Amino acid sequence: MRVLIKNGLIVNADKRACADLLIDAGRVKQIASTIEADASCKVIDATGCYVMPGGIDVHTHFNIDTGLARSCDDFFTGTRAAACGGTTTVVDHMGFGPPGCHLRHQLGVYHNYAAYKAVIDYSFHGVIQHVNHGILDEIPMMVESGISSFKLYLTYQYKLNDDEILQAMRHLHLAGALTTVHPENDAAIAQRRAAFLNAGKTAPRYHALSRPPECEAEAIARVINLARLAGDAPLYIVHLSNQLGLEYLRLARAQQQPVWVETCPQYLLLDERCYERQDALKYLLSPPLRNARHNDALWSGIADGAIDTVATDHCAFSLTQRQTLSGGDFSRCPNGLPGVENRLLLLFSYGVMTGRISPERFVALTSANPAKLFGMWPQKGLLAPGADGDVVIIDPQRTTTIRHDRLHDNADYSPWEGFICQGAIRQTLSRGRVIFDNGVFTGVAGQGRFLRRQPFQPLTLPSAEPLLQESVL
Amino acid sequence: MRVLIKNGLIVNADKRACADLLIDAGRVKQIASTIEADASCKVIDATGCYVMPGGIDVHTHFNIDTGLARSCDDFFTGTRAAACGGTTTVVDHMGFGPPGCHLRHQLGVYHNYAAYKAVIDYSFHGVIQHVNHGILDEIPMMVESGISSFKLYLTYQYKLNDDEILQAMRHLHLAGALTTVHPENDAAIAQRRAAFLNAGKTAPRYHALSRPPECEAEAIARVINLARLAGDAPLYIVHLSNQLGLEYLRLARAQQQPVWVETCPQYLLLDERCYERQDALKYLLSPPLRNARHNDALWSGIADGAIDTVATDHCAFSLTQRQTLSGGDFSRCPNGLPGVENRLLLLFSYGVMTGRISPERFVALTSANPAKLFGMWPQKGLLAPGADGDVVIIDPQRTTTIRHDRLHDNADYSPWEGFICQGAIRQTLSRGRVIFDNGVFTGVAGQGRFLRRQPFQPLTLPSAEPLLQESVL
Amino acid sequence: MRVLIKNGLIVNADKRACADLLIDAGRVKQIASTIEADASCKVIDATGCYVMPGGIDVHTHFNIDTGLARSCDDFFTGTRAAACGGTTTVVDHMGFGPPGCHLRHQLGVYHNYAAYKAVIDYSFHGVIQHVNHGILDEIPMMVESGISSFKLYLTYQYKLNDDEILQAMRHLHLAGALTTVHPENDAAIAQRRAAFLNAGKTAPRYHALSRPPECEAEAIARVINLARLAGDAPLYIVHLSNQLGLEYLRLARAQQQPVWVETCPQYLLLDERCYERQDALKYLLSPPLRNARHNDALWSGIADGAIDTVATDHCAFSLTQRQTLSGGDFSRCPNGLPGVENRLLLLFSYGVMTGRISPERFVALTSANPAKLFGMWPQKGLLAPGADGDVVIIDPQRTTTIRHDRLHDNADYSPWEGFICQGAIRQTLSRGRVIFDNGVFTGVAGQGRFLRRQPFQPLTLPSAEPLLQESVL
Amino acid sequence: MRVLIKNGLIVNADKRACADLLIDAGRVKQIASTIEADASCKVIDATGCYVMPGGIDVHTHFNIDTGLARSCDDFFTGTRAAACGGTTTVVDHMGFGPPGCHLRHQLGVYHNYAAYKAVIDYSFHGVIQHVNHGILDEIPMMVESGISSFKLYLTYQYKLNDDEILQAMRHLHLAGALTTVHPENDAAIAQRRAAFLNAGKTAPRYHALSRPPECEAEAIARVINLARLAGDAPLYIVHLSNQLGLEYLRLARAQQQPVWVETCPQYLLLDERCYERQDALKYLLSPPLRNARHNDALWSGIADGAIDTVATDHCAFSLTQRQTLSGGDFSRCPNGLPGVENRLLLLFSYGVMTGRISPERFVALTSANPAKLFGMWPQKGLLAPGADGDVVIIDPQRTTTIRHDRLHDNADYSPWEGFICQGAIRQTLSRGRVIFDNGVFTGVAGQGRFLRRQPFQPLTLPSAEPLLQESVL
Repeated sequence: MRVLIKNGLIVNADKRACADLLIDAGRVKQIASTIEADASCKVIDATGCYVMPGGIDVHTHFNIDTGLARSCDDFFTGTRAAACGGTTTVVDHMGFGPPGCHLRHQLGVYHNYAAYKAVIDYSFHGVIQHVNHGILDEIPMMVESGISSFKLYLTYQYKLNDDEILQAMRHLHLAGALTTVHPENDAAIAQRRAAFLNAGKTAPRYHALSRPPECEAEAIARVINLARLAGDAPLYIVHLSNQLGLEYLRLARAQQQPVWVETCPQYLLLDERCYERQDALKYLLSPPLRNARHNDALWSGIADGAIDTVATDHCAFSLTQRQTLSGGDFSRCPNGLPGVENRLLLLFSYGVMTGRISPERFVALTSANPAKLFGMWPQKGLLAPGADGDVVIIDPQRTTTIRHDRLHDNADYSPWEGFICQGAIRQTLSRGRVIFDNGVFTGVAGQGRFLRRQPFQPLTLPSAEPLLQESVL
Repeated sequence: MRVLIKNGLIVNADKRACADLLIDAGRVKQIASTIEADASCKVIDATGCYVMPGGIDVHTHFNIDTGLARSCDDFFTGTRAAACGGTTTVVDHMGFGPPGCHLRHQLGVYHNYAAYKAVIDYSFHGVIQHVNHGILDEIPMMVESGISSFKLYLTYQYKLNDDEILQAMRHLHLAGALTTVHPENDAAIAQRRAAFLNAGKTAPRYHALSRPPECEAEAIARVINLARLAGDAPLYIVHLSNQLGLEYLRLARAQQQPVWVETCPQYLLLDERCYERQDALKYLLSPPLRNARHNDALWSGIADGAIDTVATDHCAFSLTQRQTLSGGDFSRCPNGLPGVENRLLLLFSYGVMTGRISPERFVALTSANPAKLFGMWPQKGLLAPGADGDVVIIDPQRTTTIRHDRLHDNADYSPWEGFICQGAIRQTLSRGRVIFDNGVFTGVAGQGRFLRRQPFQPLTLPSAEPLLQESVL
Repeated sequence: MRVLIKNGLIVNADKRACADLLIDAGRVKQIASTIEADASCKVIDATGCYVMPGGIDVHTHFNIDTGLARSCDDFFTGTRAAACGGTTTVVDHMGFGPPGCHLRHQLGVYHNYAAYKAVIDYSFHGVIQHVNHGILDEIPMMVESGISSFKLYLTYQYKLNDDEILQAMRHLHLAGALTTVHPENDAAIAQRRAAFLNAGKTAPRYHALSRPPECEAEAIARVINLARLAGDAPLYIVHLSNQLGLEYLRLARAQQQPVWVETCPQYLLLDERCYERQDALKYLLSPPLRNARHNDALWSGIADGAIDTVATDHCAFSLTQRQTLSGGDFSRCPNGLPGVENRLLLLFSYGVMTGRISPERFVALTSANPAKLFGMWPQKGLLAPGADGDVVIIDPQRTTTIRHDRLHDNADYSPWEGFICQGAIRQTLSRGRVIFDNGVFTGVAGQGRFLRRQPFQPLTLPSAEPLLQESVL
Repeated sequence: MRVLIKNGLIVNADKRACADLLIDAGRVKQIASTIEADASCKVIDATGCYVMPGGIDVHTHFNIDTGLARSCDDFFTGTRAAACGGTTTVVDHMGFGPPGCHLRHQLGVYHNYAAYKAVIDYSFHGVIQHVNHGILDEIPMMVESGISSFKLYLTYQYKLNDDEILQAMRHLHLAGALTTVHPENDAAIAQRRAAFLNAGKTAPRYHALSRPPECEAEAIARVINLARLAGDAPLYIVHLSNQLGLEYLRLARAQQQPVWVETCPQYLLLDERCYERQDALKYLLSPPLRNARHNDALWSGIADGAIDTVATDHCAFSLTQRQTLSGGDFSRCPNGLPGVENRLLLLFSYGVMTGRISPERFVALTSANPAKLFGMWPQKGLLAPGADGDVVIIDPQRTTTIRHDRLHDNADYSPWEGFICQGAIRQTLSRGRVIFDNGVFTGVAGQGRFLRRQPFQPLTLPSAEPLLQESVL
């Protein structure tokens, strides 16, 4: 099975070229200015289109049971939606097991969840729910099993304290794993939340008011410094939503600390006015949406290299679930947004097509950097001979209006309803197979493979952005 | 003639309060939580509305003859449009006289232009077209005549060189005048422009490519340092459009240098994609439109206090003029955009209503800071007993779609056509008279008075922004 | 009793002038270019000298019992040393009482300590050792008693956690008190300290290695954000020693947060090489000395206004005490340095005489800012009619070599031994009495009065620094 | 001829190791933890010492005739002094030829100057004295001849204007040459200088006052932007002396512009108080010495990677020459300081031994970065098999007091007289020959070879600095 993509503009994180690209047996075989098709080749004409490494979304929560509810996407609907949005790899978060449960137990659970369902390649992040000798001792075995990143929470019931964070980071660092962190100050949130609930203030806006930006900024500075104190443990901050936290991260980078940061489209393009809407429950997530000032600041980080990746934190609960469970009370509503299908096009439209970022940087943010940070490079995140034939083809001339009824997840709404994007996803290929084609899902459940990820490599991510004058004109 | 504005939220640059406001004989007489109307009072109910000092636009070019063409707004149509957009004071730039012409000659010309036409109060900036003993000696007299700010150009045929700039700044500083500067590097523009024209590249996009952001940034750093070398001459940069220049200005401010900066709505909300449109000629101005990256950076300056004022640089040439004169060649098209009527509402909608800035900072940017910098404070820019009764009332609940056929300037198009703004200008009052009322111009030509401005005062502009948590929620 | 100081250069935080200064009945009566002496006047000729407000040292620990030992200076020897160094006011920290002890109990203890001993005026900071309703309820009464600042520790056995910090800050803010914080991350220090001690690493250098800069930086970011979350409670960081913490504070200031910061001469002029010396025990204090890189960064904050005050953290334990108690083991050595007598001259010599800061900024750092922040302005910190006659006269032409045998504290060494300073303290006056005169202490125990300090005022401290060209030349 | 250096700590710009190093036939042959000496080997025991790549000083002016005078060091005394200070390569500036003179003419002159005199390897920078077609056309040939860097002056009689700078940069960039710039604003200096001389103010301090920091900062921002406008021509700023200029450079680097910067020991360690001394003429150079505030800022750039190289700008005029020619009038005194022999030890003592920088960064600043930027890498600037056997051995335990009578240049004073340095240069080896040995020069005139340098390579210089905790302790 061979696929030849002709006449496109092939873009990697470091350069672009008008060229043809040949995929054979699931891998890129050749890139050259002209490749002749033979009879065995399926040919895709990509004239006028960008041909890029398939997207890698390193922040999803399929099938997760948060205690309040189980999310409505499993590994089939979730990865199907991803595929239809140009994403060819996801790294999902293992959910929380019962108190005291072992890391390898959850790994088994998740292999079962994904095995016959995933449409695209996948892996999992571990989660350190609690710290004890047993857990710490399990880490090396997990890394050997291909799980080279683990998440710590600073809030919620499985939050870790400073002492535990230091221990976990040190062990993860030694075992070759990347520490990822959900940063929010638990004590401050608890105080504010209690005050609002005591006063009967349960409307969705109080969700945002109970976890203001300073909660997140504080926790970011904390883990930055704890990571230093843990021997410069490599650190990855998830779903950045605020300006001050970004400034703290810039300072750490200026001192060459190995710390990286992810944001999500919702923090770039949505804002707290959503909490004044009738359908505000649709927008409950943590950290909450901020305002345009924070949007602007995050865009500046996207543009100048201070932000490394864009993921989705896809964690879908239907509006029905939200309404039923919460009765309108923010404290009883499950948190999280769907969006795995919209990431690439949103960033392409509002990033590349506005001149904020180059196509190369788009690839870095959505595919190459995630691959490098999470042990999948150069198999993923790159179009070069030997790499997997994971490709997304984007047509910059077309316009796409997002409507949930054209999406492929299992939720009953989209927070992006009505957004008009400049550009369209034309095709997605996973290891050489076309799994999305001009609006139609053409993939198969179970085709996705588990990715045994490499240990964390202390590579430098290029922060460079081409010159301003290379922008739209 | 008394006017009582009841039940509004009165906002000044430093605070806000729900209160009533009484204007008597053209001046604010009283602000109190409740003022009873008597028979002599016209009463305006401002429930649910912001009541703010009328806008001050310190950057307009009415009636200007650039050599290529005369702009299509004079002091009547220009100030009428201003009034209908909530602006109650303009400071226009005296145009260029014949080579060698005296400052006082142009002052006479401009008094004639404005005297029986202006609908709102007005003053003029001087322009230093060339430097010699005669011109330098005239400056003190001009300041005594109420002209306490003068503009220098670093490009165009009346550009000044470093030696001249130092001399001019030193004399202006001694005389109590503020130096304002149009900063673009002439040599670089000349080289690029010549190269494009030689290559037959005359389309509008080459206007932008011939004056990239670095041209502006260079000139900004130059005048910042020359102002220091001129004994810390106070300096005001007009129409900032680029990120690096803003960074240079931040550094100067961090060293307590007396330097301030203005931007315009077009640099916040429009971008270089306009030069790819069929009607690109509509958007030719200098400096040219940049991209979203620069927009973001300027918004950050608006939000954090690095930018002090928002003006328009209103300089209207009709599309007909543009097409006829240029034949599509950027080098023969007159430069400048209309917009004096749209400034307040655009900044209100995209600044205040998105949570980027507080209402107080809105007043600072559009009225209080301009008044302080240009010698009109506290007569203008403030709602307090004794100040002029210049007021704008904005309704934040209504939505306004900008259509040129509802605007009041003399151009035949608007660069803002189709923009949807959250908010609406309800009334404008100039010294107590309602000159705009729910969509209808109610002013009179000649009612505007010349403002004899005070010498520059070395006051500190507050850069403070209220807390993030005071935003929309 | 009248004193006339003639021909000096009188310097306040905002300006300087060559003038005469008359003190009558303990207060400044007149400042004028020439004041004639009459018979009742003691005349001091200050030709060629700086005449400045007496120093205010807001960080001392006299008589303190840390559990390990009692410091060797009481309110007599401590304030005598202060006086001989040009300092005319101290704000000491109340030591720790027994577990559960009331705030007012310690206030009584400290009034007893100071009453008949102090040579100069004094006040106390409260300390929040633990948080409960009783303590929180006592705060308003303490503020009424003149105690308008309270310290929180983030390490040591009386450390507070995030929940307690938020409660304390909120109550202090409401009561009109300033929160001051000793910022170091307790968990990280505890881990490192235990690791070193377990490995038998007890040499003084391990004191520094057990509390690296990141411990301090983390805690600074934490309290900055908690202060925001406590409703923008005013915050004062004591004894800043590291670069990253300063960067965090700069970011907070850029967002107009009411946060201020103190450093001490030892963090500007000494460094970690002291821990390699034979007499390293002399230099144990917390936070520990850093390296030249941090020195440079702190000097930049001194120069550009990011740092507000210079205090000493005078907490004297004799070398004998240190050696006897510790046997060379850092974990058993009491922490703290003497230095109350050296602050002014060190900053004058290495700050003013090198061109880093102006004389005005010297006054701001050592006297005016402390007075404003801690409720003593304009009685203290200013030379103007009506202010207390607290004066220091500094001769910039003389050179002083610091020798402990010429100092007036009760320690048996000085960390500044051998330092050569450009300048000399000539006279100190406390409410018009000469208490130090050309090397001789002339004060009297008990002359100092308790200062009932005002509640915290949200005034803006001027961060402005005059121009670079006003430096030495 | 083989040399074996045993037991030292071998330091390159990216790492260090305790190892032996064998040089054979002038090149490094082997580096290994233990290398056995054989009979043919000269053995040097470097126990307890740093073994580093020989220093590269890319900013010297030997034999230069400035019009006022000829400098007192030629290529023999100059390179002898360099060798005795641990420097094994210099890149000297070709002096100015007669008006209109060709580039190749000066190259011939300089080959003659250096050929039989140089003790160590050498190359030359070209100088663009004026811009015309002939000069621009000569550039590619010069680059082929091994001259891959050219200097532009923004002041002095051979200054270039913006138009000329753009042309020169563009041609240099195309030809593979690096543009280096002496940045000072000519017009401002000319005005100030004229004003002082007219007022009879000719004392040395007026030299400094006639060229304040803003003159330099302005010119730096100008060439940064012009380099961008010249198609991102690579740019190298020489002898940075001021804080604001450094901030401008930081901004350029943050945008990934290829711009680098050099400073000199005198700008790190001397200050404007020298101009108040009796022997102030000794310290006249351009840019002039600044104050401690600028010293601090430059040290921060040395530490954090914002500054790339440390050179000397060695340009020696004896005190006798200075006094005779000037009669004390700054405007008639030749400018420049000797210092080629002191660079390494000063930076080692005040940089490495204070904890400001690591030994690796010391090598980067003094040797590796200059080699990379100026086309000599990896032949120079590195200790690795195949590289030239250029080595400096530094003993960190010894202390050196600088005395001119122990130095090896041809001047009659040293600006560093009396400086006490921690450390001592023990040996210098040039291509395997010991040319300095414990205080004795052992080299030979004419042994140095001309280095035909490679064209500029757009390599990234590592700005990284190891962690703070790796400092002195």
